[in-house]
Amino acid sequence: MRAFILSILLLCGTICPAQQQDKYPLGEYEELTDSKPHDDKETWEEMGTPTSLSWGSTDIRYRKLDIPDVRKTTRLQLKAWKGERVNAQAVLWTKAGLTDVSVSVSELRNGSSIIPQSAISTHFVRYVMTDEFGPGCGQRPDKTKFDSLVVADVLDINKTLDVKACSTQPLWVKVWVPTDAKAGKYKGTLTVSAKDLKPMKLQIEVNVLNRTLPDPKDWVYYLDLWQNPYAVARYYQVPLWSQAHFDAMRPLMKMLADAGQRTITASIMHKPWNGQTEDHFDSMITRIKKIDGTWSYDYTVFDKWVTFMMDEVGIDDMICCYTMIPWALSFDYYDQATSRVQFIEAKPGDKAYAEYWGTFLKDFSRHLRTKGWFEKTAISMDERPMEAMREAIKVVKEADPEFKITLAGNYHAEIQEDLHYLCIPFGQKFPDDVLASRKSKGQISTYYTCCTEAFPNTFTFSDPAEATWTAIHATAGNYEGYLRWAVNSWTADPLRDSRFRTWPAGDTYSIYPGPRSSIRFERLVEGVQDCEKIRILREELEAEGATRKLKKLNEEVAKFRFENIDGNKPSASEMVNSLERLINSL
Amino acid sequence: MRAFILSILLLCGTICPAQQQDKYPLGEYEELTDSKPHDDKETWEEMGTPTSLSWGSTDIRYRKLDIPDVRKTTRLQLKAWKGERVNAQAVLWTKAGLTDVSVSVSELRNGSSIIPQSAISTHFVRYVMTDEFGPGCGQRPDKTKFDSLVVADVLDINKTLDVKACSTQPLWVKVWVPTDAKAGKYKGTLTVSAKDLKPMKLQIEVNVLNRTLPDPKDWVYYLDLWQNPYAVARYYQVPLWSQAHFDAMRPLMKMLADAGQRTITASIMHKPWNGQTEDHFDSMITRIKKIDGTWSYDYTVFDKWVTFMMDEVGIDDMICCYTMIPWALSFDYYDQATSRVQFIEAKPGDKAYAEYWGTFLKDFSRHLRTKGWFEKTAISMDERPMEAMREAIKVVKEADPEFKITLAGNYHAEIQEDLHYLCIPFGQKFPDDVLASRKSKGQISTYYTCCTEAFPNTFTFSDPAEATWTAIHATAGNYEGYLRWAVNSWTADPLRDSRFRTWPAGDTYSIYPGPRSSIRFERLVEGVQDCEKIRILREELEAEGATRKLKKLNEEVAKFRFENIDGNKPSASEMVNSLERLINSL
Repeated sequence: MRAFILSILLLCGTICPAQQQDKYPLGEYEELTDSKPHDDKETWEEMGTPTSLSWGSTDIRYRKLDIPDVRKTTRLQLKAWKGERVNAQAVLWTKAGLTDVSVSVSELRNGSSIIPQSAISTHFVRYVMTDEFGPGCGQRPDKTKFDSLVVADVLDINKTLDVKACSTQPLWVKVWVPTDAKAGKYKGTLTVSAKDLKPMKLQIEVNVLNRTLPDPKDWVYYLDLWQNPYAVARYYQVPLWSQAHFDAMRPLMKMLADAGQRTITASIMHKPWNGQTEDHFDSMITRIKKIDGTWSYDYTVFDKWVTFMMDEVGIDDMICCYTMIPWALSFDYYDQATSRVQFIEAKPGDKAYAEYWGTFLKDFSRHLRTKGWFEKTAISMDERPMEAMREAIKVVKEADPEFKITLAGNYHAEIQEDLHYLCIPFGQKFPDDVLASRKSKGQISTYYTCCTEAFPNTFTFSDPAEATWTAIHATAGNYEGYLRWAVNSWTADPLRDSRFRTWPAGDTYSIYPGPRSSIRFERLVEGVQDCEKIRILREELEAEGATRKLKKLNEEVAKFRFENIDGNKPSASEMVNSLERLINSL
Repeated sequence: MRAFILSILLLCGTICPAQQQDKYPLGEYEELTDSKPHDDKETWEEMGTPTSLSWGSTDIRYRKLDIPDVRKTTRLQLKAWKGERVNAQAVLWTKAGLTDVSVSVSELRNGSSIIPQSAISTHFVRYVMTDEFGPGCGQRPDKTKFDSLVVADVLDINKTLDVKACSTQPLWVKVWVPTDAKAGKYKGTLTVSAKDLKPMKLQIEVNVLNRTLPDPKDWVYYLDLWQNPYAVARYYQVPLWSQAHFDAMRPLMKMLADAGQRTITASIMHKPWNGQTEDHFDSMITRIKKIDGTWSYDYTVFDKWVTFMMDEVGIDDMICCYTMIPWALSFDYYDQATSRVQFIEAKPGDKAYAEYWGTFLKDFSRHLRTKGWFEKTAISMDERPMEAMREAIKVVKEADPEFKITLAGNYHAEIQEDLHYLCIPFGQKFPDDVLASRKSKGQISTYYTCCTEAFPNTFTFSDPAEATWTAIHATAGNYEGYLRWAVNSWTADPLRDSRFRTWPAGDTYSIYPGPRSSIRFERLVEGVQDCEKIRILREELEAEGATRKLKKLNEEVAKFRFENIDGNKPSASEMVNSLERLINSL
């Protein structure tokens, strides 16, 4: 009845599917334009044949508009353990252009033994916009201040693709050798077909060695890549925590399980990292303050997410709950009185902080024990001031002295004993005695990289072998594994543009919607496999008393230590290739 | 672990009580300065005695710094029905200043009969900042664009007060004649005491007539003043819906019950009026969207508020639930998935609108029937476009055809039949046949004023008698009562400054924290009493066949009709006094 009337917001209630498909493609999509200088038409015209095909290297991100610098080979020889995944990259380039290109690999034969086609996948390597390291961490509001270029990274799932004239199309091949394969040389053929093209062929050979890599589930390497369910809901345009959302997440999270992922990332408060990613994390647990002043807790989402990850995906080692000490000390709860989400502003040490968290943690402990998850659950922190961490730990221990606590932050002698799982930055070390003591107590000690490191990293512009190097560095440095703070915190348009408002491009994700893997992700898995192989070989060589071989292996591994790469950025590919050659020769 | 760290917000968790008492006084407080031109010291010095006391008129807001223009009288004669409240105003003015002034009235005696002191209250009339009508409705971002002055309005509850030199202090007296008082003239004394002052006295006489006004509970007049519980929580600095909040509201809401208030104002959504008041209304009912897509509803707050108003305050005629068609068509719900309050943007007629409201209303009907409140509950609307109202009504009727619906808005022939309670603006009329039909069906038909009317109104600068006039206008215009959209939507500093960012000052409230009544509120109650007296007299005179007296009464009442005040603003005080003299002479 008040006289002024607001204009009625006629917002579109439902999103036009066609528009959304264009915005968030899952199937076919166009890459962004590569505007960098590249081989001109004349150079391309010098090609002897309209189209060429050759094996290339998985160490190289082939430029899209340049004639690839490859020594043309049609035969590739790989070595693999039983149960191991091995990658290969072929390169197709054409001055004429190709329509409806498809790639297939035959089954691989070794006499009557075969590695079936179902164990082999092929992928067009797609190009995504990246930038450069620049200042590493920090905001990048102005994208023009950084170099921008498209790089080969995405391993596409589409089965056909047109390849434009005067361009290069890399092809990725992945063979997951069955655990029950017989040792021996398996041979097959990669075939590239296209409209009006006589099929082009390459020979592929996998020499299966007589050693077996365990199932990822049984790997010892502690891999912790933080998942972001919120990004999946946004990109797939499905209601958060709906069946459609879980259906979308299942194959993505299976990729992590197959990579040896050990932890479930759970957010137990609103914006544990202050909403730094394109899709902020929200609380999977609701704290409800009733009008009589008592608290109740809704674990529906948390339970569903954890159950999904454990039972459907198979990641069930640890539930890391972020966080009691976020960067912004503002804690959400649903307030029955105001029918709003309200925030308590309190810092560790405050009475209000202890009340808010203490009351919750007591109930959380009870809930986790009911679910049988208590032993697998940790209250997880990022680096915060020591006094704040101490106060937080106090509150946790007061609520339930048996609560596990984890930290991804600097090494702190003062609190390390309290930390069931402590992940420290690249370059920091655990004292040897501490590491031994932690191991004996079943405590986990790993390292992480993030925006800080120019090398090694898994940005979209990083050398592919750096991903492998990163994984191996854990074994070399006596860490038990590796953590990265984001595996699918997608940018607004992750398939086409990996640049973000902060940090070097690709920092926030290494798997793509679809689900699609990436050169980075596959090379990281390769590194984790290498570490498992090193672990197995060490045990074997030690048991055999093969001291010289063991020494040789350890020396090669030791090259990946922080103190051994001082000075110039090493050639990750050379180091990795050298180590892998050794591993496969022992 | 991300490198940039936000500065920690060190917000004060608790509010310093001393500061808050100063900000939101409940006891003693200082008025704002009256900076208007006023009688100078020389004029004041001409006073014969240092301090004077006289009866004044309840029609006048005496200026604080002017010598009051009163014919000095020490004897006041009032007439009252048994059970009626009557008001009087005395004026104290002093050139010397007074310390610790207190006012008392003796019991009133009529032979051996008495009206006890407990039936009499005295109040210092306090000054509050006001502005002027200006453009009526609309924003007032710049207070300097309107006249600002302090006016007498607040009826204070403090028992002593200092009165500065050269100032006027009005004193309000209220006598609530007991229903069982014997008719006759009751006499007593008003005494003003102060430090170093010989007590000053005035005679007061109440002639109790041999007619009885029913208890407010039994009044027929339909009074609907919208309550704002949120303002009380803020001003009293108590947690919303806590026991302390209800304790604070109880005496305030009792004032309404004593005024014949009939409705409970309930907000069933976030910001039904787009947060137009200093304290926005929030949803007293939470709609919870679960991750499986189903809805659940939390009625805790609604139930507590309604139960309080019905059982503790005694207002139990109707629960008006605002609203299904707010100005901003954005509807809140608690979303279990995101652990956030989310909003659906949908307009009446949309599928999403029908789903959101239809699902809720079905459950609400079930809940109300369980509580035994269904017959007393209405889904209430403000004026909206006809098509929107029709669509909303359709959704309500589909959910439960027996749901009552109310509207405070224009008269609409098209939908009036659907409206159990229809309140139309001052100046609009119900067609006679419609009014008769509505009455026969037990439907309620009233009128309202708001920011639109320069006259009559209850702004802090309005003539006191306008409040009485406003109430009487309902009876004169054949409305069944009166609605005002706000009775305690307090400004930031309601005791000292009644100006608001929108509308003329005082538009948003007529009762003050404390609780304190106001000249406006008491004069409105006077008008409602007059209407009850007119109703009773009409029945009586009709039954007696006293045609001439009835005609005289009706003629006097008819003067208060809209069509009879065309042209100049009438003198509300003259009209009211004339009518009240007649009423008390019949």
